[in-house]
Amino acid sequence: MTASATEEIVTAGFVVIGDEILSGRTKDKNIGTLADFLTEIGIDLCEVRIVPDIEERIVEAVNALRPRYTYVFTSGGIGPTHDDITADAIARAFGVGIDFDPRAIAILEAFYPAGGMTDARKRMTRIPDGAELIENSVSKAPGFRIGNVHVMAGVPAIMQAMLEAIRPTLTTGPRLQSRALDADLPESRIATALREIQSAHPGVMIGSYPRSKDGRFSTQVVVRARDTALLDAAARDVETAIAAASAS
Amino acid sequence: MTASATEEIVTAGFVVIGDEILSGRTKDKNIGTLADFLTEIGIDLCEVRIVPDIEERIVEAVNALRPRYTYVFTSGGIGPTHDDITADAIARAFGVGIDFDPRAIAILEAFYPAGGMTDARKRMTRIPDGAELIENSVSKAPGFRIGNVHVMAGVPAIMQAMLEAIRPTLTTGPRLQSRALDADLPESRIATALREIQSAHPGVMIGSYPRSKDGRFSTQVVVRARDTALLDAAARDVETAIAAASAS
Repeated sequence: MTASATEEIVTAGFVVIGDEILSGRTKDKNIGTLADFLTEIGIDLCEVRIVPDIEERIVEAVNALRPRYTYVFTSGGIGPTHDDITADAIARAFGVGIDFDPRAIAILEAFYPAGGMTDARKRMTRIPDGAELIENSVSKAPGFRIGNVHVMAGVPAIMQAMLEAIRPTLTTGPRLQSRALDADLPESRIATALREIQSAHPGVMIGSYPRSKDGRFSTQVVVRARDTALLDAAARDVETAIAAASAS
Repeated sequence: MTASATEEIVTAGFVVIGDEILSGRTKDKNIGTLADFLTEIGIDLCEVRIVPDIEERIVEAVNALRPRYTYVFTSGGIGPTHDDITADAIARAFGVGIDFDPRAIAILEAFYPAGGMTDARKRMTRIPDGAELIENSVSKAPGFRIGNVHVMAGVPAIMQAMLEAIRPTLTTGPRLQSRALDADLPESRIATALREIQSAHPGVMIGSYPRSKDGRFSTQVVVRARDTALLDAAARDVETAIAAASAS
């Protein structure tokens, strides 16, 4: 698969696998990382699901998202321990076999000292039939891609390395551009104006994000569009509305 | 609704609503907050979905989760602006009407100065028929509960205040207790032992969480159970296994 850009919108779903996120023990960082990565290259992240280390739940989430989006990404559950069940779940989701993969074995044998390929490490070479490997420049044990699903590690540094490895292979669409405009006002003071601006500019998306700091409310208005001229026109109207509300 | 504790396991799903999380502009903090809150009071968070500001997608996620879990929580989309569509989506998910709610109007009228109840602010009083209000001690505009679904604000400080408001109303189950054991080893070095310990202790859940820092790998093993004796026995075995692997 080689990289290409298209005028069509390219979409993605993300399945985060891990009891530790759902229990609160680990605070997820991968969602923000993937969201930034995809936005930057012109792929719209449309949905995220966080599921526990239960095979049925992983299968269900992956099979719900893969027909719906151009790409699906997963993080977590591909290490050497008994609770790493993602590779098996993905094989089941695709209805294919899974076995020790000679390419993955070769990578790990070259990495570990002689005799270092323990059963536990070998478990990380189990790859579903028909999958392509995703390089892991950090700790070598590879991820894999099968169909439109990219299976990556949950450790943030490794997931980031895997994203860099697959970046050249992804088809990307027209990038969604954005302008952020700050208003030192609670959003209720500009809500009516924003509604009118949104109606007048159907080609843009206007989001209003309230913030509270030390009991004081402010708002960030984010205007997004794939077309720069449409974006600039709407952003100007928002700026004017913020200035008018601030002065009143 | 009054609080109660049960011996049965109490479960929850969480729907995070907001384009800003999916675009990467805002890094979510509410998932970690809710996960910690629920774990602390003995409710298992079993699934999270992040969906965009699109009514159909909110309806779909809420209707998928509410028959599946004891409780559903949502965050985001209940402010005064045009992109705040959660209340309407929830009404549609339940097939009920939605209108300005006299209780919510009374709260906001008491809070704002005379004449301060603008159309935008009044929009925040739209509540689905049959819902109970959730108090917002930060900025007053209430959340609401309908059926087993709790609809809360996306601003972290407000969501936290709403969680405190509903805490006494939630039925809770036996709390999942945990012990975290640190191993200064890559997880492949203890994987075989952990698998055996997991097999020998079916009443506990053993999770293995690799970490990488400055190119060095370590592992945190987390043992979880509702029963303290089972927890302690498994944790002791894990400790012994870590010590043996470290010495070898």
